Amino acid sequence: MSEIVNPSILSGFMELLPEEQVQFNRLKEIVEEGFVEFGYLPIETPAIEKLEILLSKGGGETQKQIYKIEDKSINQALKYDLTVPLARYVAQYQYDLTFPFKRYQIDRVYRGERNQRGRYREFYQADIDIIGRENLSLINDAEIPYTMYKIFKKLNIGKFTFHVNNRKILNGYFEYLAIEDKDETMRILDKIEKIGYKNVREEFTEIGIDEDTQNKIFDLIKFDTNEDVLKRLKSLDVDNKTYIEGVKELELVYKYMKEFQIEEEYINLDISIARGLDYYTSTVIETFLDGHEDLGSVCSGGRYDNLASNFTKTKLPGIGLSIGLTRLFFTLKEANLINYMDDDFHYIKALIIPMNEEQMEYAIKVGNMLRNEGENIQIYYESGKMKKKFSYADKINCEYSIIIGSDEAKEEKVSLKNMKTGLQETVQLNELINMIK
Amino acid sequence: MSEIVNPSILSGFMELLPEEQVQFNRLKEIVEEGFVEFGYLPIETPAIEKLEILLSKGGGETQKQIYKIEDKSINQALKYDLTVPLARYVAQYQYDLTFPFKRYQIDRVYRGERNQRGRYREFYQADIDIIGRENLSLINDAEIPYTMYKIFKKLNIGKFTFHVNNRKILNGYFEYLAIEDKDETMRILDKIEKIGYKNVREEFTEIGIDEDTQNKIFDLIKFDTNEDVLKRLKSLDVDNKTYIEGVKELELVYKYMKEFQIEEEYINLDISIARGLDYYTSTVIETFLDGHEDLGSVCSGGRYDNLASNFTKTKLPGIGLSIGLTRLFFTLKEANLINYMDDDFHYIKALIIPMNEEQMEYAIKVGNMLRNEGENIQIYYESGKMKKKFSYADKINCEYSIIIGSDEAKEEKVSLKNMKTGLQETVQLNELINMIK
Repeated sequence: MSEIVNPSILSGFMELLPEEQVQFNRLKEIVEEGFVEFGYLPIETPAIEKLEILLSKGGGETQKQIYKIEDKSINQALKYDLTVPLARYVAQYQYDLTFPFKRYQIDRVYRGERNQRGRYREFYQADIDIIGRENLSLINDAEIPYTMYKIFKKLNIGKFTFHVNNRKILNGYFEYLAIEDKDETMRILDKIEKIGYKNVREEFTEIGIDEDTQNKIFDLIKFDTNEDVLKRLKSLDVDNKTYIEGVKELELVYKYMKEFQIEEEYINLDISIARGLDYYTSTVIETFLDGHEDLGSVCSGGRYDNLASNFTKTKLPGIGLSIGLTRLFFTLKEANLINYMDDDFHYIKALIIPMNEEQMEYAIKVGNMLRNEGENIQIYYESGKMKKKFSYADKINCEYSIIIGSDEAKEEKVSLKNMKTGLQETVQLNELINMIK
Repeated sequence: MSEIVNPSILSGFMELLPEEQVQFNRLKEIVEEGFVEFGYLPIETPAIEKLEILLSKGGGETQKQIYKIEDKSINQALKYDLTVPLARYVAQYQYDLTFPFKRYQIDRVYRGERNQRGRYREFYQADIDIIGRENLSLINDAEIPYTMYKIFKKLNIGKFTFHVNNRKILNGYFEYLAIEDKDETMRILDKIEKIGYKNVREEFTEIGIDEDTQNKIFDLIKFDTNEDVLKRLKSLDVDNKTYIEGVKELELVYKYMKEFQIEEEYINLDISIARGLDYYTSTVIETFLDGHEDLGSVCSGGRYDNLASNFTKTKLPGIGLSIGLTRLFFTLKEANLINYMDDDFHYIKALIIPMNEEQMEYAIKVGNMLRNEGENIQIYYESGKMKKKFSYADKINCEYSIIIGSDEAKEEKVSLKNMKTGLQETVQLNELINMIK
């Protein structure tokens, strides 16, 4: 006999008890249905990829966070996001795919980083991306948040806000202001929500941006109504092609978002956001739950001019948004916002309880009958006291219990108990399905 | 600019093009629905577990096949089946779960073995198990194959056969024959389908089983009708408690399988099968597609007296069956047996094609309207020639295309084209949903 090993999982990982798993799966299902509604196709890439693929964008933070697989001969690791595998997939199968290629992938990704509260080493992302060949219309930049808008509405999570920007505006404006390190400036500005206005000023000063220039930046990003933001952007006399293009694109994306009927108060043209990752080139989007902004963006993404430049010379522009699904789930749980399941949801329609072994054949027959009508039915096969059997019914969250004694079996009846009201009545077998439907 | 990295995946891994992925996902969905119908609860365990958990059953083949994660301090690896994590899960949460605990898990597992044809390093398993605390009724041993029976029927894969045995019969019989190495004898016998009768005889001789004893073994396992197999087993005057118990159990499982209405010709009481894995203690089941027996069992499992003995002192008997889902998918594809999707299945109900940018707002409106009626709708936003747009509609497998020119937009109409018949007609917007439903 081998020794007892303590049953436990690695720190930074998580798993759910069945009841929560049912909730999580329903969340995943609603998200997936929302993606399919817009014609996104499913793909699934391996968990393990060649290391050179995963590191093709260059190392940095990624390299530190990657889970490597032990192997003498092959460098391989677990995928840490769904975007790099998508880029590889699209480049690899570019002659088999039809462009624009709309794909969704809801899958687990892996980060070997030190675990912190709310950060997992394995978690779900739910991504949609639209990839064009050579070109991709700007309307896609509005359809993508609209897809998410419909999903969040269906999830019934209360008010939320899309923060939308175009990085060309910042890039062009920094160019116009003759700022040397545009990337660093953008990175600092991007932290304004997190570290605050004062710290951003300090960091700007540190990299040599003078106060006058700083003021000009803060003037640009001032909050205002969307119409007024656009007015201000256009009224500034910025003689820079990239800036002008960015403003025009942002205005169009906003116009299309409205045409899709995203309500005005769900959109916030927010010139301060940039998204850390450097592959975004124009539209960038973050999504916050109103009143829970401190939890961070629950759905982020943007447009990249050339998704797969590391894998192919074909120009493949794309736009994508990603939900951190595991994080969203725990956010909703914490904020008491799991409103997407009916209060009287029952995983199991009925538990059939035969009182004795003798009623087993009849119980099986009743179970078969109800399942053939599309109901989810469980039968309690174990022997034991009725009290134990009833207690099982209480625990498994079934809507009804169907009790079968010798009389019921003889007379083709059942005793039907509504678990919520506690009411119990004798029902003819041929009436049973209508009673519980 | 970074170098171009060749976009490819590791050998032994696979991924599907979207059209096949849709087929695979539908397979997964039917299997899942079949599990839920019987009240199995979903669980999901991490891909990465502590190495001591995964190796708790002792090394051997497993140890060689395991994917280890590179880490200085923690021994961890990828799960290679769903049974060991289940045992760990049930032991870990035994005071939170309700027993009998019916769970399903459809998930990817990892084997670092050398890849061969039809063997992948990452593949899906679809497992159901019922775990009792201390006791578990034998009826579960019949419900489990019935659950699979209903799923395979729904998948419409043609005739298949459950081979059912009880290891107590072989164990008791070997004991009765005073065979020394019962495990090895069983392992050799289990290979009879693969290596044939003659080779089994040879290997028996090698481990010192005399011809007379060999004959007695071959007498026991002779194929026959199910009733005759049971008659023969009972008529043999084997004075061994384990044997007698095994025969009685097999007879009961057979009786219950019939009560569940599994057709007689789908059941084969086959005393030769044992299943290699050593944790099965009584009922063992394999499933073959008739005419494709060479492809091996598509669904296998059995009963274990004590699932989690490595993790807890609580006795947790269980019965489980597992579908190798990835393998089943490719088996069905090869045998041309993907019959579970309608011939006129369309992932996308309609592609809306605005002729010009001017009709975009109207196209968005039509798309919103149809989606709100529950249809999966895509809009073609790109500019370009009509020919290119129509060719896109041909490629994406939509049931209809909806063409919108300036007249249609003005008059609240659309031009509706049935992609199969090629017929095109002008339809009032308020009649559109009824036309395509």
